[in-house]
Order: sequence, then C-alpha cells, then structure tokens
Amino acid sequence: MSKCIIAIDAMGGDNAPKEIIKGVVLAIPNNDNIDFMLVGKEDVINKELEDYVYDKSRIQVINASEVIETHEQPTIAIKKKKDSSMLVGLKLVKEEKAVALISAGNTGALLTGATLQVGRIKGIERPALGTLLPTKKGFTFLIDSGANIDSKASYLVQFAKMGSVYMESVMNIPNPKVGVLNIGAEKEKGNALSKETHELLLAEKNINFVGNVEARDVSEGVVDIIVCDGFVGNIVLKYTEGFAKAMFGIIKDELTSTTISKVGALLSQKSFKNIKKRFDYSEIGGAPFLGLKGLVIKTHGSATAEDIKGAINQAYIFNSNKMIEKIEAKIF
Amino acid sequence: MSKCIIAIDAMGGDNAPKEIIKGVVLAIPNNDNIDFMLVGKEDVINKELEDYVYDKSRIQVINASEVIETHEQPTIAIKKKKDSSMLVGLKLVKEEKAVALISAGNTGALLTGATLQVGRIKGIERPALGTLLPTKKGFTFLIDSGANIDSKASYLVQFAKMGSVYMESVMNIPNPKVGVLNIGAEKEKGNALSKETHELLLAEKNINFVGNVEARDVSEGVVDIIVCDGFVGNIVLKYTEGFAKAMFGIIKDELTSTTISKVGALLSQKSFKNIKKRFDYSEIGGAPFLGLKGLVIKTHGSATAEDIKGAINQAYIFNSNKMIEKIEAKIF
Repeated sequence: MSKCIIAIDAMGGDNAPKEIIKGVVLAIPNNDNIDFMLVGKEDVINKELEDYVYDKSRIQVINASEVIETHEQPTIAIKKKKDSSMLVGLKLVKEEKAVALISAGNTGALLTGATLQVGRIKGIERPALGTLLPTKKGFTFLIDSGANIDSKASYLVQFAKMGSVYMESVMNIPNPKVGVLNIGAEKEKGNALSKETHELLLAEKNINFVGNVEARDVSEGVVDIIVCDGFVGNIVLKYTEGFAKAMFGIIKDELTSTTISKVGALLSQKSFKNIKKRFDYSEIGGAPFLGLKGLVIKTHGSATAEDIKGAINQAYIFNSNKMIEKIEAKIF
Repeated sequence: MSKCIIAIDAMGGDNAPKEIIKGVVLAIPNNDNIDFMLVGKEDVINKELEDYVYDKSRIQVINASEVIETHEQPTIAIKKKKDSSMLVGLKLVKEEKAVALISAGNTGALLTGATLQVGRIKGIERPALGTLLPTKKGFTFLIDSGANIDSKASYLVQFAKMGSVYMESVMNIPNPKVGVLNIGAEKEKGNALSKETHELLLAEKNINFVGNVEARDVSEGVVDIIVCDGFVGNIVLKYTEGFAKAMFGIIKDELTSTTISKVGALLSQKSFKNIKKRFDYSEIGGAPFLGLKGLVIKTHGSATAEDIKGAINQAYIFNSNKMIEKIEAKIF
C-alpha cells in the first residue's frame, strides 16, 4: 500500500512555525501510513526541526521563500506571492504530490488560492467551508461557515450533500440529519434563501433532510449538518467563539472573587478541564474546504500543535475513505 | 403630574396568567407613578388577584374574552381574534389609554398587531425589535432581532438611529457606539446588505458609527448598538439563548459528576448565582418594538414575575424620557 502524503503550511498562523512543526513531529509515531511535507522557508524549518528527535525519513521539507500574512488582502496576496508556503502547498495538492494541505494561515487567501489551484469537483457550483460546532451531544457540521457570501439556494443544496458525505465518512455518523438554519421550524418561516432551500431539499431523495433548525436548538445537537449562507454561518461560528470566551472569562472572574469560591473552583478543577475540552476544537482539527479536487483544511489562526495533530488525523480519514469520489457520486 | 398607565397582557406566555399578574402586583410598591391595566379574561384575572394584598386602586382589569396562543399563525390570529388580550391591549396603546403594552405572547402576532394597531412613527420605514444581549461589559442592543426579514440598507440606518436613542435615553449610555454586524472589520467585507449599510452610515452625522463589528467581538462589548437584518439578528439572539443553556447544562453535569466536584460546586454556589445573573435578562425586562407611535414590549415566552417587573420599569423610563419624540427628531 502506498503511503499517504500530507502537506502542512509551516508558516501560516500566529504560532507558526513553532507549533505547526511540533504538531507534525508529534503526529509521526501514531501515523505509520502518513508521510509529511513541511512547506515554508527551508532554513527556518530545518532549524526548528533540530530541536526534535524523530524519524527523518518521514518529513520532507519543501522550500517556499514567501509568507502570506494574516492581514493581507487575499486576492492580491495570492496573485503576488507565487512562492508563498500556502501557494506552494496548494500546488502539491494540485499535482497530486500530497493528498491534502493543512494551513493555519489567512483564511481568505487559502479559499481563493484553493479554488484557483486545486479546482472544483465537476458539478460543484461553489466549494464551501465546513466547521464542527460543539453541541450538547457532540458536534454539528456548519456548512457554509464563511466561504460564500450571498449564496444561492442551489449552493446550499450542494452544501447539504457534501456535509452529509463528510459526517458519514469522516465523523462516522450513519444517515446524518440535515437541517436548514432558520428562525422558525415551519416551512413558511425565514428569508427568501431559507425558504427556497427548504423547498429544494424536500425534493432530494439521497440525503436525510429533516427540515428547518431553529437557532436555539442548534446547541442541543438536534441535527448533524446545518446548511446556511456563508455570511450567516460565519457570524454564528465567530459569535460562538467570542461568546464562549466571554463566558469562560466571566466564570473565571467570579470563581476567583472570594476565598471560598477559589477553594470551590480548585476542587472542581478537573470538571472545568472537562468542560473546556467539550468546547475545544483541537481534537477535531480544522475546517475542511469541501468541493475541491483535493483536500484543503483550514485550522484556526491560533492553532497549536494539538490542532495540527487533529487536522492531520482528519485529513488521513478523509483520504482513506475516498471522500472526493463520494462527493462526486453524491452530487449527481 | 398625571399618572403613567401601563397595560399588561395577562394571558400571553407560558406562565400566564400567574407569573404575569404576580409581576404586576410586585411592581406596585416601587412605582408610585404608575397605574396598571391587566388585560385578559376578567374572571381569571380577578380570581388570581384574590391571592394578593395590594392597593386595589392601582390595577384596573380590562376584559378580553380571547387568547392568542403561541403556536397560532400570526396574521390569521390577529385577523380572527379581535377580542384577544393582545389586541385589546394594543388598542389601549393606540387610543392613548395606556403608554405601553407588555406581552409575553406570540411574537409574530404581537409584531403584526402592533404595526397595524399602534401604527408607525411618521418617516419610519419599518419598526424593529431591539434586544439587549449580555456582554462582558454589560449589554449591547441588537436591532433588528427578528421583526424584518430580508431588510434593506435604509431600514438598518433607521435601526441605528432608533437604537442610539434607546441606549442613550433608557440605558443611560452617552453617545452610544453603533456597529454593523459583519464577518470582517474592513469596509469591503461582508454581504451586499452590510456593505451598503456601512456606506450609508458613514454619511450619518448624528450617530456615533464606529464601523463593522466582527461577530467574535460582540460579547466583548465593543459597541453599544449592533444593527443587522432581522433574520441574522434573530439567529444570533436565539442561538445565544440555546448555546448558553447548553453550556450551563454541561457545566452542571460536569460539576455533579464526582463527590469532590460537588463539594467544589457547593462552595462556589454564590459565584454561579452571580454568573447566571450576568446572563439573565430579567432585570432588563424585554425587547422593545421601536418605531411605533406607542411602546410595545415583548418579554420572552417563559417570562417570570421578575421579567414583568423589569419590563414595567423599562416602559416607565421609556415614557418618562419621551422616547417617541426623540426617535421622531432623530429620524429627520
């Protein structure tokens, strides 16, 4: 069996290259079937790798002299920085030298670059970004979480199909339930887009469409896939991050406000660790960009070594389960 | 000085009439300048009132033989149930017999009924629902939080103005900051609506427009007023409710999972009460429906006596500060 090769953008994100490289080294022992390509400034990567003892045959360093920064305007950056770690990494996927690229870099640039370089699966109108949102029961897949602003209903129907393949094949959920994110449960509720999407999804036989999902029920885990426009999805995603952060901040402030509550918090420490873990994306990895002829995974800007490990695992399952072929089959 | 009269829909919401009536009775001692009209089935209300000792001159019972239920289709309910507590209450506002109506009933019916009965302030394109969202620093006013789906940019500009008046006059925040809810801070980011709204707001001189607000920063309390389309606003609002509920559920589960964590939770009990209070809307009351010639406040469906008390307080400040005149002045 030939090895699966995964490329990692060593220069993208706030903690690059340190945490990115650490994540790859940590992933080596548990993944005998994967070899890695670290893309970025060769001298920087090699210097960083000197800190570790690992099987050198498993990591290949691919030089790229430029870095796309977080604040750069995506289309301009992609046009100008041809030798950036991100573009060189995307080319490895395009040329099938790697099965996936993982990057914590500039989201907009990654989306633009991925669409241009890797290309769409035939029949896909718009690739979309899918993100696993934490719920009471586990996770729900939010698609589109930010790639397509002002979407059409026909895009959302494809998001539903791609999301179904993902949840079934990667997250191992049989016959996953699909819902349209909406402000009411009834078919007539919502905006023009949600109503049209609802109508179109009712006619789809090979997905498990269960109707509208009210925003208040999302966190209960009532469906496995939530489809929405990328503007709305991105707002929900980012809002969740911000709200959870504010809530944990408030909890921390309150629990350290008196001596008694401090003692209480100390005794509950393990529980709090578990709670934080429940809201932690690290074990999942990142957000796959679905609908392309290769896999591109975006991990968040502040990705740690654990996030990278998670994303590698996700990429491996994605590839082993022949996700791209399955999406192709589902679209027609 | 003539007294301020506030009408309350005694029959709306999951806890009606018990909690609604209790809330009104509790509000009497602290509000010498307010008298109350309880609208609903006379016999039911009078029977409920028998349980309390209070100054009988302060509450007038206004009979209404019908009740609009939560599940009813709003436009049909408003058309058919002319003698419902909600419609009779709205008429009291229309006829200036009361300065405000507070209802925990069917939101859609209340919006439809309020627009038809009470009527718009001259110059207002669309009345909107404003809701105070909890943040780290206090509250931010989300407008529109559900009245107008598929809004135009010109509506959002008016929402910004009405929200500014509300935060300044009722919440006592000088020169409140207005932001457009968006997926990026830059002017070019967002969907067609957010971009156009941003452009229009830049030209407005008499509000404190600070630009786009990224969803992740909302809970930090970076602005006082957030304007958005009612579809997006309602999703954010309902999602927050659901997410907070799920999070508290998870925290509770974890903290009661071992004996040690139970002891810890017991010691931190007071802190947890404070935390819950920070995310509690009761002290604020409800969501005002702005842009009408009278005040209509929606409290949530599961409103308790405390919520009703809060809403009464809010209605009183609204009226004392001549909010409607101020909105009129701001619109032109």
